[in-house]
Amino acid sequence: MENSRTVFFVSDRTGITAETLGHSLLTQFDGSRFRQVTVPFVSTVEKAQAFAERINRTAEEEGMVPIVFSTLVTEEARNIVSSANCLFLDFFDAFIGPLERHLGMKSSHTAGRAHGMQDIGTYTTRIDAMNFALANDDGVTTRNYDRADVVLIGVSRSGKTPTCLYLALHYGVYAANYPLTEEDLESGKFPPALLPFRHKLYGLTIDAMRLQQIRNERRPDSRYASMVQVNRELKMAEELFRKNNIPFFDTTTSSIEEIATTIIHETGIKRRFF
Amino acid sequence: MENSRTVFFVSDRTGITAETLGHSLLTQFDGSRFRQVTVPFVSTVEKAQAFAERINRTAEEEGMVPIVFSTLVTEEARNIVSSANCLFLDFFDAFIGPLERHLGMKSSHTAGRAHGMQDIGTYTTRIDAMNFALANDDGVTTRNYDRADVVLIGVSRSGKTPTCLYLALHYGVYAANYPLTEEDLESGKFPPALLPFRHKLYGLTIDAMRLQQIRNERRPDSRYASMVQVNRELKMAEELFRKNNIPFFDTTTSSIEEIATTIIHETGIKRRFF
Repeated sequence: MENSRTVFFVSDRTGITAETLGHSLLTQFDGSRFRQVTVPFVSTVEKAQAFAERINRTAEEEGMVPIVFSTLVTEEARNIVSSANCLFLDFFDAFIGPLERHLGMKSSHTAGRAHGMQDIGTYTTRIDAMNFALANDDGVTTRNYDRADVVLIGVSRSGKTPTCLYLALHYGVYAANYPLTEEDLESGKFPPALLPFRHKLYGLTIDAMRLQQIRNERRPDSRYASMVQVNRELKMAEELFRKNNIPFFDTTTSSIEEIATTIIHETGIKRRFF
Repeated sequence: MENSRTVFFVSDRTGITAETLGHSLLTQFDGSRFRQVTVPFVSTVEKAQAFAERINRTAEEEGMVPIVFSTLVTEEARNIVSSANCLFLDFFDAFIGPLERHLGMKSSHTAGRAHGMQDIGTYTTRIDAMNFALANDDGVTTRNYDRADVVLIGVSRSGKTPTCLYLALHYGVYAANYPLTEEDLESGKFPPALLPFRHKLYGLTIDAMRLQQIRNERRPDSRYASMVQVNRELKMAEELFRKNNIPFFDTTTSSIEEIATTIIHETGIKRRFF
């Protein structure tokens, strides 16, 4: 960890908001190396004091002043931590003022609700969507597609399963997925089971080299992982998408978040919570 | 939507950072109603102009000045959007300055890397952890527990599966889960398959009323969902945790994020990426 500057994400609760903010900003300082440490559940004065001491110790040991991204809500904890030897960047400090003035009301100053349980309804939807994704993964059944918001299709290892799970967990979207098998593709026909749900289909594709690499990790030196096979499958799948006007997305250089966001954005599917 | 103020989350890329941060701030203004709209991929001057017009239209139609949370990176796009009729809150503006001064370097001003693909290694770890969670869900096998970072145990519907998937997707943690069945619990013995992995176990429990409600949605009026059964199972499971010094957490009022963060925090498991 030599020459890495320590960055703390501190919060009364999970620290996810502080991490998101801090991480987002740190990506703008590419050349630097950071040791990132999340310190969640700093919910008492004692914990704030212990954390302030840890900051001071770190500064001394590393010879570099740590950066602290904070979403601490109580003023007392904030004052304790901000007086330690650090660059203290507080998320609420920066934005609560302008928001209070704009809305003409005081903020509630309650700790970290953002990643807490919102209400039973939201929680149930989320779990239900996740169970739906699990139960309708990999074409295991097509019987529930009438309840699906979207059905992802694509060749094996094009990114369908993680995308479905992400859509469920983060948007409460009911996402099923169906693998386009060699048989499906070679038949030259539209997979009959999918016909009634054409308007719900969204295709995923991926660069052949990358897919070959992924498949080879899974089944080394198999026909499944051969470049010939990968090329053939991808070509046929993309043809199917184009011929049937199925929107599709190349996942090669995208994260799961980007794939999921693109699908929501392009299809106009309604997310069930924020 | 009457009397809801529109809040936009705008970004060059996915908008996830803007959403997370904006949402976190809005939870501090409970009394207000907000119509939340994410506008991702505003990556050109034309799109920024179209968005600025949308803001002005919204302000006029609703008779309320919209709030815009932005992570737009390019100054040009930012200038266009911020001059529309809105409260413009920009996350980079607020913090990039102090960070540049503290680090003694300029930021790269590149668009939204925070939720993009980081590198192939991280991506592969993430997918691999997710596949591990799927392959080791619900005690379907205990053969891979030597590769697990943590094995969640608890009665049916105590929150194991969503927590494992979240740990995989967001932290790259290898999480398996094993359901404590009636047979396991009644035997009075420690489940033999789990014995070699005692140090990796983490228990989940839940309030009886809540569990009864969840199970009843799944199998209405079954023995499985009866209050007697639920109480018995929970009592035996918590006894098992206590007797064997297995750390455990009550999930009743917690979100998946809070459960996952608590496990990471309490066990000291290393996350594989930020």
